[in-house]
Amino acid sequence: MAESAPGRPTAAVLVTGSELLTGHVRDANGPFVARELGGLGFEIAELMLVGDRPEDLRAALEFVAASGVALVVTSGGLGPTADDLTADVVAEFCGAPMRLDEALRGRIHDKIAGWASRAGFDGPALNAATAKQSMVPDGASVLEPVGTAPGLVLRRGEGPLVVVLPGPPRELQGMWPAVLTSPPVADLLSTVPRAEARLLRFFGLPESEIAVTLQELGRERDLSRVEITTCLRRSELEVDLHPLPGAEAESAEIAAEIAERHRRRLISDVGTTTDELLARALLDGGLSVATGESCTAGLLAGRLVDRAGSSAYVSGGVVAYSNEAKTSMLDVPAEMIATHGAVSPEVARALADGARARFGADIGIGITGVAGPDGGTEAKPVGYVCFCVTTSDGQVIARDPTLPGSRADVRERSVDTGMHMLLRAAGGLPGRL
Amino acid sequence: MAESAPGRPTAAVLVTGSELLTGHVRDANGPFVARELGGLGFEIAELMLVGDRPEDLRAALEFVAASGVALVVTSGGLGPTADDLTADVVAEFCGAPMRLDEALRGRIHDKIAGWASRAGFDGPALNAATAKQSMVPDGASVLEPVGTAPGLVLRRGEGPLVVVLPGPPRELQGMWPAVLTSPPVADLLSTVPRAEARLLRFFGLPESEIAVTLQELGRERDLSRVEITTCLRRSELEVDLHPLPGAEAESAEIAAEIAERHRRRLISDVGTTTDELLARALLDGGLSVATGESCTAGLLAGRLVDRAGSSAYVSGGVVAYSNEAKTSMLDVPAEMIATHGAVSPEVARALADGARARFGADIGIGITGVAGPDGGTEAKPVGYVCFCVTTSDGQVIARDPTLPGSRADVRERSVDTGMHMLLRAAGGLPGRL
Repeated sequence: MAESAPGRPTAAVLVTGSELLTGHVRDANGPFVARELGGLGFEIAELMLVGDRPEDLRAALEFVAASGVALVVTSGGLGPTADDLTADVVAEFCGAPMRLDEALRGRIHDKIAGWASRAGFDGPALNAATAKQSMVPDGASVLEPVGTAPGLVLRRGEGPLVVVLPGPPRELQGMWPAVLTSPPVADLLSTVPRAEARLLRFFGLPESEIAVTLQELGRERDLSRVEITTCLRRSELEVDLHPLPGAEAESAEIAAEIAERHRRRLISDVGTTTDELLARALLDGGLSVATGESCTAGLLAGRLVDRAGSSAYVSGGVVAYSNEAKTSMLDVPAEMIATHGAVSPEVARALADGARARFGADIGIGITGVAGPDGGTEAKPVGYVCFCVTTSDGQVIARDPTLPGSRADVRERSVDTGMHMLLRAAGGLPGRL
Repeated sequence: MAESAPGRPTAAVLVTGSELLTGHVRDANGPFVARELGGLGFEIAELMLVGDRPEDLRAALEFVAASGVALVVTSGGLGPTADDLTADVVAEFCGAPMRLDEALRGRIHDKIAGWASRAGFDGPALNAATAKQSMVPDGASVLEPVGTAPGLVLRRGEGPLVVVLPGPPRELQGMWPAVLTSPPVADLLSTVPRAEARLLRFFGLPESEIAVTLQELGRERDLSRVEITTCLRRSELEVDLHPLPGAEAESAEIAAEIAERHRRRLISDVGTTTDELLARALLDGGLSVATGESCTAGLLAGRLVDRAGSSAYVSGGVVAYSNEAKTSMLDVPAEMIATHGAVSPEVARALADGARARFGADIGIGITGVAGPDGGTEAKPVGYVCFCVTTSDGQVIARDPTLPGSRADVRERSVDTGMHMLLRAAGGLPGRL
């Protein structure tokens, strides 16, 4: 039951919502809260998704309380409908009666009056909803609504502090700064020792190699004060080192050892993402990028533009999904497509050159492949993808791997591979891939 | 504690992996397994993410067993490293000793020998890893590895059936058909009554309106045999109706009532997604689409190509992120950009027309907006996005909302809005938006 590592207090995250248990809706709140609490020095003992029925939440609260967590954060169940019962269940768990907060009701009403009347949705439905969302447990700290639901902070006697937050991710995240400054949470945080985590990223390294490295290191030194986990994320292997308080120097030494032994495949030894490294390399080099995408169809360009400020280095791109588009928009010779096929190293290079020329960019990338599920042949099976990066100073980097997985997997891995090739072309890698 | 609705057996999903509790890695397995089990007639009682420490998994297993679930599915912790302990913990939970499965070891070895020697990773590390992954609980059904880890099915005396699956989503999903046909699971499934869920989708409808509709319906008829949940997913509201066995007809009637009362905002009353409807409308109409994207930068084109067979209706697109690209690649007049600004209804329309003309498509869409976090003005704040869809038969559909949220939110909602506008232009909506 999440026996706490010495020195790090534990926390639990309870995300409510029957829709999350259908598997049709992704939970964004659990990961957000876990990440934030981890950064504050907590160890997350459990992250539970439970249904909207009060008995489910009640059982989950008792379970995490029994495991001795110092803090419980709940999300969801604060909406206006009858299945939204989190405030009531937490109030009961903490032994606090519910009361109507009149001032809060007024503030929520003022917030939505304009929108509701413009949209034609004012009236009894909305008034009932406002009243329901203004009921708060006696003694709870109220966090101002971002949408229409307030957050709540309250304690169960000698048990955990409970923070109750709304389900919509935008509201929950918008309320997070207020959580940290609310007096009961600020008091608790003042007792939590911070310990910096360390994250190494590798490209194309199997997990078993890290296992062997750790066995070898374990014969030379004590690893018990640093929690080390590995995780394969598509094409990248992450090694996460989480020191106990006071073991930060040990953690740094171990991280340096692991990085040194696998330097050729290292992307970053301080957790920097490929996206950050690429943005930095392009900005530092004053370089611009243009894309010519077939199977990824804009996903690589979309990823390059994920970062604010990307207009400084993204010129643009073409989604050249049809053969005609490859020829008319990126000057891929029709004869080349006829001779080598639309999925070929030749066409990938022509897409890269065409994108670079048409957009006047320093670096061009071309991607063309068989994403599947149909269209594979013996010579070019599903997953076969041709990549080429060309630069205005004459670099050509080409690859044509066969990537595993579904259509979505092949396209995602293609975007990852494209990002790595761009990073290499832009000179942003610490080692050599 | 997940009191079961009468007639539906409950299941729990336990996803292990300390990296998931850092919040830096998204869990894909919980939602997949929940969705599959829901479709088979199970009600998911809990979905828990727990760390890699054996005591965490042990506590979670006891918790869900105490709640009376018929089935537990675990994912993760079957890898080759020392923190992968799921098989051992489940064996102990079920009272089964571990044994080495020699035949399995041979099969795993044969599977990876070629790759390992090509990649230069054969040797003691890999042999140790193979041996570890060939240890299975006595009496368990072994599911053939998709990667290198086998799945396991075993029972705890009179307690739940436990299915142990690997963590990589591709492996877990690849193993799922074998789970369903393994004798203990097939036996259990033969006792589970199926009940078809129903999903209504609406665009631009607030949750509070559904709350009022349900109150009204509840005065006219008994709703207790149908579990109804609502969930706002970006711009769409989903209403999920889950009947108890035997209540399918009631559920269909209630769904029809809700759909009828909000017909103008209905996307689908049989759970069909916007993406499916759009693909169908384009195919049925023999129509093709081209995109001209600025702030979404390829994400809309990428989404259109998510579906296999999309080459039949996606001509291509341009990521016209810079003003020069808008002019050179999509013929947006430079004077128009100077006069109205790059983010303007005029430029959105010119992007749509330019994309349609350049790619020879029937439908063009232009999107240009202020994704943020910087670049907003009083007249054109962050979130202000101009959309235009034009068609070869003279339709023009234009919108310029200010969308809430972060840069990522604005871009995601823009893609959603673009998909809806395309659906409307292609004639694929049941009602009128």
